[in-house]
Amino acid sequence: MKQVVADAAIREVKSDMILGLGSGSTAALMIKSLADEMRSGKLQNIKGVATSFQSEVLALELNIPLIDLASVSQIDLAIDGADEVDPGFQLIKGGGACHVREKLVASKADQLLIVVDETKLVQNLNLSFPLPVEVLPNAWKQVQEVISEMKGSSTLRMATKKAGPVVTDQGNLILDVLFDDGINNPKDIEMKINNIPGVLENGLFVDLTDKVLVGKIENNTPVVYSPSRAS
Amino acid sequence: MKQVVADAAIREVKSDMILGLGSGSTAALMIKSLADEMRSGKLQNIKGVATSFQSEVLALELNIPLIDLASVSQIDLAIDGADEVDPGFQLIKGGGACHVREKLVASKADQLLIVVDETKLVQNLNLSFPLPVEVLPNAWKQVQEVISEMKGSSTLRMATKKAGPVVTDQGNLILDVLFDDGINNPKDIEMKINNIPGVLENGLFVDLTDKVLVGKIENNTPVVYSPSRAS
Repeated sequence: MKQVVADAAIREVKSDMILGLGSGSTAALMIKSLADEMRSGKLQNIKGVATSFQSEVLALELNIPLIDLASVSQIDLAIDGADEVDPGFQLIKGGGACHVREKLVASKADQLLIVVDETKLVQNLNLSFPLPVEVLPNAWKQVQEVISEMKGSSTLRMATKKAGPVVTDQGNLILDVLFDDGINNPKDIEMKINNIPGVLENGLFVDLTDKVLVGKIENNTPVVYSPSRAS
Repeated sequence: MKQVVADAAIREVKSDMILGLGSGSTAALMIKSLADEMRSGKLQNIKGVATSFQSEVLALELNIPLIDLASVSQIDLAIDGADEVDPGFQLIKGGGACHVREKLVASKADQLLIVVDETKLVQNLNLSFPLPVEVLPNAWKQVQEVISEMKGSSTLRMATKKAGPVVTDQGNLILDVLFDDGINNPKDIEMKINNIPGVLENGLFVDLTDKVLVGKIENNTPVVYSPSRAS
């Protein structure tokens, strides 16, 4: 099913575009489909901007030309996954600990296309999926205290295949935060959390998404649809 | 069994020591046993030097006073785990991606005490456990090529709970290397790998270990013994 959504996303791409290349499993399939279309000549003169070490390495392996985020002035279309999507297309991202670069890319993009499966659609954000917050390594306890005063409980994301915590591509740590009543005012929470000293960026993507492609299984067949945004 | 080995290690500690606090699961138990002995007053005036973010956080939680590695001139005893121990007490470490700081601590320590269970004892290093090599993020492909010329096959260690690779506490990546015939000349391999541009440090600990404590199950009871070093 992820492959079907990835292929649908690539149909939104036109030649000569500068593309934001998302992170995660669906985005990885999308990058592979993109490389196929470029090899076959259907898509020409595409340049990519990676949102993570993962998408960068994958694009390089597949010979997709990359531009560095710092040197690009504008991105035509960014395609990325999400961990939760609400009816107004507000998102929680960061399950892959890449939301800082993903948000930089999304903010620079004319269009943000989100690809998910149906399980990621929620009525209210943060009732089950924790909000990832990237914090400086020596600030995590301090940030945790401030979030606790905001009625959020948070845990330091721990690694496997490494002693101690998950470290991000930027060398920082991740706090996963659940608010008592979920997040009903994402714009407000996004600002408040980013204002805590020691926080780099949180995984709320507010008013950034233009279109969502959703994969689901219907009569044993994977199908893709694009819900309209609730106002 | 790990607890029994951890407790045996703490019996090597004397009051007024500056202690290197290792990483990994056995070392974590050792740090907890240390805190118990300090609380009960059996051990007094102990100061710790952490080998990782993990051991640092644990020691702080347990009120063990810490000294920064950069400001300590000498460590009395370092206690740490290992992934492989050969009969001459040469080690492979780095399964927890902490071997850079662990080696800094071990090198500064008058005594290095290694705590393991019997499964970590091997006749020859690197026949089954890959040698971890910490590399700069943009150098990993280049390092991989040089290691390949040395007849080592290596894989970039990938993360879970994060897209892409494991990132170390220092913000670098890990290559896990298996040599075709294992490692028979650890001192030589240690030097050669550390001499590759882009490599920070590899997990070979050569001529550093003074004593090994091994846990095993005998008649359904965990016991600890200390093998003598093969010359």
